[in-house]
Amino acid sequence: MPLPEKPIPDLERDAGGGLMHRRTFLAGGALAVGASAVAGLPSQASAQGAIGPDQPLWMKTPGAPFRGYGLPSRFEEGVARHILQPYGELSPGAGVSMTPLQAMHGTITPNGLHFNRSHNGVPDIDPDGHKLLIHGLVDRPLMFTMDQLMRYPTVTRTLFIECSGNSFFNSNLFPEAMQVPVGMIHGLVSAAEWTGIPLAILLDEAGIKGEAKWILAEGADAAGMSRSVPIAKCLDDAMIAIYQNGERVRPEQGYPMRLLLPGYEGNMSVKWLRRIKLTDAPTHTKDETSKYTELQPDGKSRQFTYAMDVKSTITRPATGLAMQGPGLYEVTGLAWSGNGSISKVEVSADGGQSWAEAALEGPVLPHALVRFRLPWQWDGGPVVLQSRAHDTAGNIQPNRSDWSRQYAAGQLYHCNAIQSWSIAADGEIKNVYS
Amino acid sequence: MPLPEKPIPDLERDAGGGLMHRRTFLAGGALAVGASAVAGLPSQASAQGAIGPDQPLWMKTPGAPFRGYGLPSRFEEGVARHILQPYGELSPGAGVSMTPLQAMHGTITPNGLHFNRSHNGVPDIDPDGHKLLIHGLVDRPLMFTMDQLMRYPTVTRTLFIECSGNSFFNSNLFPEAMQVPVGMIHGLVSAAEWTGIPLAILLDEAGIKGEAKWILAEGADAAGMSRSVPIAKCLDDAMIAIYQNGERVRPEQGYPMRLLLPGYEGNMSVKWLRRIKLTDAPTHTKDETSKYTELQPDGKSRQFTYAMDVKSTITRPATGLAMQGPGLYEVTGLAWSGNGSISKVEVSADGGQSWAEAALEGPVLPHALVRFRLPWQWDGGPVVLQSRAHDTAGNIQPNRSDWSRQYAAGQLYHCNAIQSWSIAADGEIKNVYS
Repeated sequence: MPLPEKPIPDLERDAGGGLMHRRTFLAGGALAVGASAVAGLPSQASAQGAIGPDQPLWMKTPGAPFRGYGLPSRFEEGVARHILQPYGELSPGAGVSMTPLQAMHGTITPNGLHFNRSHNGVPDIDPDGHKLLIHGLVDRPLMFTMDQLMRYPTVTRTLFIECSGNSFFNSNLFPEAMQVPVGMIHGLVSAAEWTGIPLAILLDEAGIKGEAKWILAEGADAAGMSRSVPIAKCLDDAMIAIYQNGERVRPEQGYPMRLLLPGYEGNMSVKWLRRIKLTDAPTHTKDETSKYTELQPDGKSRQFTYAMDVKSTITRPATGLAMQGPGLYEVTGLAWSGNGSISKVEVSADGGQSWAEAALEGPVLPHALVRFRLPWQWDGGPVVLQSRAHDTAGNIQPNRSDWSRQYAAGQLYHCNAIQSWSIAADGEIKNVYS
Repeated sequence: MPLPEKPIPDLERDAGGGLMHRRTFLAGGALAVGASAVAGLPSQASAQGAIGPDQPLWMKTPGAPFRGYGLPSRFEEGVARHILQPYGELSPGAGVSMTPLQAMHGTITPNGLHFNRSHNGVPDIDPDGHKLLIHGLVDRPLMFTMDQLMRYPTVTRTLFIECSGNSFFNSNLFPEAMQVPVGMIHGLVSAAEWTGIPLAILLDEAGIKGEAKWILAEGADAAGMSRSVPIAKCLDDAMIAIYQNGERVRPEQGYPMRLLLPGYEGNMSVKWLRRIKLTDAPTHTKDETSKYTELQPDGKSRQFTYAMDVKSTITRPATGLAMQGPGLYEVTGLAWSGNGSISKVEVSADGGQSWAEAALEGPVLPHALVRFRLPWQWDGGPVVLQSRAHDTAGNIQPNRSDWSRQYAAGQLYHCNAIQSWSIAADGEIKNVYS
């Protein structure tokens, strides 16, 4: 956070509704946000001892001893994934758990809060009983135990994974905007630092036959989740992921290993991966015909829509949070694209009439979440906050009516429409269609 | 992991002891590492159904339902921090828990495994009862509640934190090399994506008086841990960290907030931060006089040694792991420096006689952990593996005898000596002084 050499004028306006230039905060200038002046404190108070806030209980008694594996504070127990099980007790393992974005910051999702989509529960896989098979159109079918895989060369990348059905609460499934926390709307996206083995190395060892153009990837869960992937992606940046944020992949994310296809819809990064079969054509599995296709107004469905589209959402202020009254705020959120890198994020505080460019936190990595920020002076009146992301492939996040018009009623996949938050004079934050 | 256009010759040697060029793996070329050829499998096996590995139990029964906050697989229960309590039951909250590097990969430390140093236990702080005071040589003493702080502008950075006492098992405290896992030797370093408020903004709001040259930072734990920090660092890149890898800072790392000084010895990034007092000189607290100073051979101690020195260690192969017999391996580890960025890491497989340059995983960020990798063909004979890091400030990691010579017997802080692992013909990996 190097301070700029030349101060930016205080409270410089960059767009309507009180949005300020993105470098305003960094220039300093006594922008009083929310601190309380302390009355009656000598500025030369003694260096040590009880000063200012009374010494609390936790300074007077020894704290807790060490533990092998840590957990969040008990005061954060309410920060948990949102769970949706559409079939209820009939099929408790079918559904999603969603990342609570309203309670989070930065760009990494801690492993305990990474979203999960499963079709028949999370398998309890003994890694000593798990093998990976590579077969089909190869010269030498190969079988790998975990121990054998652990000797292979590795790659580490920070990547988002987004469910194809993320943001379904704002899709054509819901004609009226639902009032749920931002994590329930957009929390089927998470990001982690993944480490694994480049798939290209394993395929090369098996020997790819000339007629092999696709793979079938199959999971070892009780749904046998499986998808077809073009061979070109497998030879580009696909990996067999074994570590997630430094530790072994979590059960909900595919323990002991998953396929990982940067930027592609999440279900293609097959979890609990047990085999890869090289084929000359897509296999048309149940998971790519009965779902994960997009119904269009003419009654035809789009299939094999891989890359997730350019997208962003403001996470603060957002539903699930409360305003603290008029004054200075930081507007911040996340942006991402399955087609390259984020090039720009704009923020509007007047429902899209004017836009100010947000600051992006570097390094801005391809297929990763990007945190954006902009200072905002809220005058206490009603406003509509929006963010709009651009990517290096030239795509711009569409507004909701333009997105909606592409699809039939009820179509929920690949929803990347601009999110609008209305803020009322009383501080209530609502999800609105704008 | 884009494949290079021109293949590198297979098994190109880059240094003695079987080290290969860092791009060997990326060039492909059927480097058989550890897979098993599968006999009797038809290459055109049916697309779906039981093929290859028998369908395991976990494909035949529904998996576990969803949970709000996830945990590692029960098969990974052995992956836990190493706990050392030098005073035992007399003071169970004084000591360390160390990151188990031998079981990990990538560069991020998951929050459950981030190292912890505490002097009188981990306080159980109610954030509603916690305040931050800024006072001393300021124009306006200020007090912040958590709610007030949450409105301030934020910054996000991936940073390592290293305890000043890290690697004490290889320091002058132990004349003989100890046989413990690499996580017990070097696991007082961890890395996370931290999000917080630039300290400069809060100090600016309080108004820094001209004579203020230092701060005193004090924690709200039962040790009242406190350190002096030059004001220049506070105005440069210091932050008040509130989020760790996306979620609120863990209790062991300072919940609800900590000071964070990139690159400086860990104890200065005061946890459970309750007050910052601006002063005209260092306060000489108990934590910077009775410890965290380095005794030299002439009987004088160095004080206020802030930045952690350039350092690296191989984490695989390393103590705590076993070799699988002769053949191809990836040598990989971590490098870091408190003085800028890592510029180069070299690896030796002949005890330092010859060195090969390792590949660094990007982005290489200042004050972050960097993962390095190099392919290695082990012929099954005895070898000594070492790594040596260089930083952008021109520093080179010293060998152990050069490091040791700077200090008196028993001096344990700031040990950045080159780590040597001996590998015997039977595959045993040992810590050796070389």
